[in-house]
Amino acid sequence: MRTQVCIIGAGPAGLTLAHLLHRQGIECVVLERRSRAHVESRVRAGVLEQPTVDLFTEIGVAGRLHREGMTHHGVNLRFGGETHRIDFDALTGGKAITVYGQQEVVKDLLAALAPPVLFEVSDVRVADRRVTVVHDGAETVVDCDVVAGCDGFHGVSRASIPAGALTAYERTHPSAWLGILARTKPAAEELIYARHDDGFALHSMRGPALTRQYLQVPAGTDLADWPDERIWAALRRRLDDPALEDGEIVDRGVTDLRSHVVEPMRHGNLFLVGDAAHIVPATGAKGLNLAVADAVALSYALGAYYAGVPAELDRYSARCLDRVWRVQHFSWWMTSLLHTPDRADPFAARLQHAELAQVVSSPAAARVLAENYVGLPHPVGWSWR
Amino acid sequence: MRTQVCIIGAGPAGLTLAHLLHRQGIECVVLERRSRAHVESRVRAGVLEQPTVDLFTEIGVAGRLHREGMTHHGVNLRFGGETHRIDFDALTGGKAITVYGQQEVVKDLLAALAPPVLFEVSDVRVADRRVTVVHDGAETVVDCDVVAGCDGFHGVSRASIPAGALTAYERTHPSAWLGILARTKPAAEELIYARHDDGFALHSMRGPALTRQYLQVPAGTDLADWPDERIWAALRRRLDDPALEDGEIVDRGVTDLRSHVVEPMRHGNLFLVGDAAHIVPATGAKGLNLAVADAVALSYALGAYYAGVPAELDRYSARCLDRVWRVQHFSWWMTSLLHTPDRADPFAARLQHAELAQVVSSPAAARVLAENYVGLPHPVGWSWR
Repeated sequence: MRTQVCIIGAGPAGLTLAHLLHRQGIECVVLERRSRAHVESRVRAGVLEQPTVDLFTEIGVAGRLHREGMTHHGVNLRFGGETHRIDFDALTGGKAITVYGQQEVVKDLLAALAPPVLFEVSDVRVADRRVTVVHDGAETVVDCDVVAGCDGFHGVSRASIPAGALTAYERTHPSAWLGILARTKPAAEELIYARHDDGFALHSMRGPALTRQYLQVPAGTDLADWPDERIWAALRRRLDDPALEDGEIVDRGVTDLRSHVVEPMRHGNLFLVGDAAHIVPATGAKGLNLAVADAVALSYALGAYYAGVPAELDRYSARCLDRVWRVQHFSWWMTSLLHTPDRADPFAARLQHAELAQVVSSPAAARVLAENYVGLPHPVGWSWR
Repeated sequence: MRTQVCIIGAGPAGLTLAHLLHRQGIECVVLERRSRAHVESRVRAGVLEQPTVDLFTEIGVAGRLHREGMTHHGVNLRFGGETHRIDFDALTGGKAITVYGQQEVVKDLLAALAPPVLFEVSDVRVADRRVTVVHDGAETVVDCDVVAGCDGFHGVSRASIPAGALTAYERTHPSAWLGILARTKPAAEELIYARHDDGFALHSMRGPALTRQYLQVPAGTDLADWPDERIWAALRRRLDDPALEDGEIVDRGVTDLRSHVVEPMRHGNLFLVGDAAHIVPATGAKGLNLAVADAVALSYALGAYYAGVPAELDRYSARCLDRVWRVQHFSWWMTSLLHTPDRADPFAARLQHAELAQVVSSPAAARVLAENYVGLPHPVGWSWR
């Protein structure tokens, strides 16, 4: 098989890129290790920032998103017995976030996609301008100009790059998130980020009768130590909401709070996009949005490349990394603002309280949070023309 | 001797408090261990925030300050070969800082002071409502209602409080500042805060032919390792200014970057004011200003106390500590924004770069810096009436 761009991974990064390339008249094929049913049901991110929603709207894949997604014009910070709303609308000139599950984004992108997707490929091997996979029991060779590695942190793309060719930056937080998806009614119209001496809690939602809630727990926590009643008691206490509704927990898991970045986001003709190049702690809700921003930047660079301006491909990595590090900074800032610090450092606890006080008393400080949370503008459009 | 308030320490905190009490008709006496010549010549802080200047103007001690002080409507951040000005005027609605040495403030406050100051006292002992000192070779007993401990971090006031009565919070930075006072012409009209891979540098001034400049050095640095030529070479390199003028260095020293806070800022009838209760790292230029803010709060509370509203004295500590921790946070934020982090943590260096990029590209982030740097409004006026 011959194509221009071989995209590895049918998550939000790969599928967004496939859409954008197709609209620029660039041929591509998407290779995915899992089944379509699997990628359409994975519970992952659920907050779309404004530039992500604007992009999906512009390329015509946001019909259901606008019908079913929940637009939030603010977010709540709860601590010390009080709730402080950060008003995105007022602070950012009308920008908002949209609560809409990643699996729904994937469904919408797949449903409208023109380029072919090969699901359940195995034995993926990436060489320069050539990707080999096994599909339907037979080896398939994809010859291409460029490979887009959109297959996540544990994917083949990055693993195919020789050790030492990229520089890795890593940081881990001593805490993790225990997350649940539960059939309960949301306790509020907008997300609640709660700081509590017992630990951080986040109350979010995926629908009118479906909540996504998180608890700060020590890294390495075993889910077996958290039976349902302990989870609900902790959520009620940390969210300072004794009436918080409990119900069936339909999904649960523990996720580390960690950062990872590789530089550059390119090796030869292989370009890394999204989680394949970087992981952010979940606190800022940025993982999916950062992947979409990378896809925009790569679409722009490839549009330029095929229009005879190859230098834009050389700018791809630096352009993405500017945003990646801004977002890493924001994600760590949100994490340190809200997570209970090490008990051995009471000074840090006092500084945290002072910073929270600043965020809720200084409109400028609230605006910094808001403008990052709703999403910084993409530095370039997705189309070269 | 009988008075209402016995003030220990004739630095900016004690002298400001003496002025404010006198204007409220409250009697006080100031006791100082050093000579008048000594306190009038100590080279210490040199940046007055807007509320400090406004206060000195209001109480009539700012005549020379307005003639000789240098009003700065902005500050420069220099890194990566570029200089970015933070425009206080535009970002804070016309507020500014004034560069004017602490010793000049002390001279002005002393020159206009009505209450008595006893210099060169020794053997200071603080008991409840009684302070005993030796002055002119004789023991002097001061009986009072309230003792104001304005004698700094190493002073007698805090040392007189029983161990365990206060909670201490402490943090130290792995770096220190090597500071010089030099007879050279300032290289710019406003302060330059420079981030460089070799370490932070600050170019500031005390007059048209007098500069105050600082270099980040490892804690524990020996001045003997820094002959003049090494200091000038490091300043030129870090400030990215090969033409930086050198000249006679008339004062030099190494100062730790550290924080210390005790809570509460009171023990019985002894109230701690300024450095006696808290130390901030010098990066935010806040030590003197925080001491003045404490003096304002104590003046207000004592005005209330003598007007028959004793509850205000009980609010003194919490009111001060709100500001103290906001300022500690700002001072650490400025420090981590500008000081070269540990080479073993390249992730921190990348986050620092991202945060600097935010400060110079987001007007909201620049405003957060500006509004803290020019000084948050005092929470109460100095006079109860």
